Amino acid sequence: MIIISIGNEILYGKTINTNASFIADQLYGLGIEVQKVITIGDHQEQILETLTAAFLETDFVVMTGGLGPTKDDITKQVICDYFHVEQVINEKVVADIKKMFERRGFKLNEINRLQASMPVGSIPLTNKNGTAPGIWIEKDQKFFVAMPGVPFEMKPIVTDEMIPMLKERYPFQNCIVHKELITAGIGESALSELIESWELALPKHITLAYLPAPGKLMLRLTGRSVKGSENQLHSELKEQIKQLKKIAGNYIISDQSENLEEVIGKILIRKKGKLAVAESCTGGYLAHLITSVPGSSQYFEGGLVSYSNEVKHAILNVRELNLKKHGAVSEFVVNDMAINTMGLFDVDYTIAISGIAGPSGGTPEKPVGTVWIAVANPMKVVAEKFSFGTEGGREVIIQRAARAALYMFYKLLQA
Amino acid sequence: MIIISIGNEILYGKTINTNASFIADQLYGLGIEVQKVITIGDHQEQILETLTAAFLETDFVVMTGGLGPTKDDITKQVICDYFHVEQVINEKVVADIKKMFERRGFKLNEINRLQASMPVGSIPLTNKNGTAPGIWIEKDQKFFVAMPGVPFEMKPIVTDEMIPMLKERYPFQNCIVHKELITAGIGESALSELIESWELALPKHITLAYLPAPGKLMLRLTGRSVKGSENQLHSELKEQIKQLKKIAGNYIISDQSENLEEVIGKILIRKKGKLAVAESCTGGYLAHLITSVPGSSQYFEGGLVSYSNEVKHAILNVRELNLKKHGAVSEFVVNDMAINTMGLFDVDYTIAISGIAGPSGGTPEKPVGTVWIAVANPMKVVAEKFSFGTEGGREVIIQRAARAALYMFYKLLQA
Repeated sequence: MIIISIGNEILYGKTINTNASFIADQLYGLGIEVQKVITIGDHQEQILETLTAAFLETDFVVMTGGLGPTKDDITKQVICDYFHVEQVINEKVVADIKKMFERRGFKLNEINRLQASMPVGSIPLTNKNGTAPGIWIEKDQKFFVAMPGVPFEMKPIVTDEMIPMLKERYPFQNCIVHKELITAGIGESALSELIESWELALPKHITLAYLPAPGKLMLRLTGRSVKGSENQLHSELKEQIKQLKKIAGNYIISDQSENLEEVIGKILIRKKGKLAVAESCTGGYLAHLITSVPGSSQYFEGGLVSYSNEVKHAILNVRELNLKKHGAVSEFVVNDMAINTMGLFDVDYTIAISGIAGPSGGTPEKPVGTVWIAVANPMKVVAEKFSFGTEGGREVIIQRAARAALYMFYKLLQA
Repeated sequence: MIIISIGNEILYGKTINTNASFIADQLYGLGIEVQKVITIGDHQEQILETLTAAFLETDFVVMTGGLGPTKDDITKQVICDYFHVEQVINEKVVADIKKMFERRGFKLNEINRLQASMPVGSIPLTNKNGTAPGIWIEKDQKFFVAMPGVPFEMKPIVTDEMIPMLKERYPFQNCIVHKELITAGIGESALSELIESWELALPKHITLAYLPAPGKLMLRLTGRSVKGSENQLHSELKEQIKQLKKIAGNYIISDQSENLEEVIGKILIRKKGKLAVAESCTGGYLAHLITSVPGSSQYFEGGLVSYSNEVKHAILNVRELNLKKHGAVSEFVVNDMAINTMGLFDVDYTIAISGIAGPSGGTPEKPVGTVWIAVANPMKVVAEKFSFGTEGGREVIIQRAARAALYMFYKLLQA
């Protein structure tokens, strides 16, 4: 299948195309593989050409973007042109839009009413979070879905409307099963060498992909076979993973598609542990990662962003001696931070980070990218120094430091 | 021009294609418009087909991904096939890779040496941050650049190598000038109605795009004309913006491509103000936004993530009476938080947020998405209640709350 993303904002580089990834992931779970994602601008001709070319290569096209209130939206007309149908105002859609507006306390304007116009023969896909419904068209053994480009409007249309419709109506030919392993503590190239012999011995219908993401590396093992062979594939993949774990088990932190912060959350809930953090260079990003997990309030008490030395001393009671003698980015200071955070927040686990995220603030002994991290439980404090380099700039240093801190904390929980 | 992004990880939906946006933005600044972005998998045939088709539509193709240490990388062979050339080991590139490895304390392995193999006639583009260099090929009036897919390797290759080469060698036909306006406090549909008459009166060579991003909306005005007419375009756009500001000036927070957090940073530096924040439901995300601005340590003292009621009371001295009588998500509590943060961090400006990010924790009176925000200076505290709904889930509520807090604080600074 092919995804077509429409939007000048994506081509101009100001908006990142997260929609295509979301849709691809959802479809992949159904066994539908995306063969291509094409992003184009809001140009009527280009949309029509691209749609036409796409349907020469596939029987299923999903289009996002170009459905919305502003007047650069021309997608709907192209869809009608391609399928040779007219548009009519759909009164059910009008009613939906009206309801949404009433809930928000707005009045329907003429622009919004036009959004209820639908290609004849199409099925509207309910948009819970916006005014433009999705459009489902099935014609001449072609499947077509169009959705607005705003992610939080698009996502429920995909999961609650499109996926159930596909399950019912799409002529599936084969099945795909995939298993994911989250690794940490090893780079892509070193891992690749380590598991090379195992990878080369994989049967043809099972493939391995390296999916790097910030601070972690996911391995995805995919088995492909004919419809109905799900169980067979599952047990084959399970056996392969067993073999892999013999070689690289140390670096595999989860065999579910979960982040390190989710893995840590589960362990803390099991241990009934309470966590607090103290951050300097990461500026709240570590707390943000931890609290991005739903239910994190069960184990996360809070955090201090001690950005200045005054705050480190006055609130966190970091010794002035240590700040002056060793500097804020030192083992002494992160140890003070980790230990005192335990008392300040009344918790049994802490993480502390102090470093130089740049672009300025580096010295010859402590260049930008130098970060000290300490993790503590009531029995011990473990500190480690990292050099994250200046390669990715401030943003990457912040991300790597927070990820490294989570991994250190994970190891402490394992010990 | 056309961007081809290669990578199963993007098609499978696990990695978001941020590279294409970055490259598009950089090229757009030069006046080169991206007409299409195509994402495909690591399949030799598909890459060759896509490259061939792309060069039928354009004279300039940039390819990212498929250059890296793991063995699913086949792009280089495709490039050689397309341009009908051989590969040879480039000894300068070998030396570069060796140097990088020595700096990191690793030894060169055979896989890494192979990365120094280059198509004959190509120019290597130095990769400061990785082992695979970029590849520049100019042949039969076609321009082609290939780069690794890892963002922090790709970015410096684009800015330090590709852009200067393009400026020197690419046959520019026209010029593009664009001006961006950051708006806040108004939605896309309302803004569109407000400025409709102005937009309709724009001359044909000037176009307007709405570029929505989390919590803010950017307007981009683009002028296109023949090479050499930059100055003319600049003054035309300036005049249009002057007109626009008469209609919608209240909602325009910046005419530079900067975020609200950067605008706020500049104002605080000018006022010599010191800021601290106290966050509950946003869990560190507000502090993270503020500290993502380089140089924020000049005005940001720190923040407290007071995730539990105990922390709100024990560290921030929020009155237990208020917590019990009105609940943590109340005007009383955010006011306490804003005022006490001023004393705790010894600052003159504070922002406080308390709300329910969900998915659980909502009640009939205070459903998920209810957020109280207070901003304070030494003269006054202003609190406001928001209902962000449950539409985008936890992540969107956190983002909207932090953005709304920044906008409230911006208004306080303006007052």
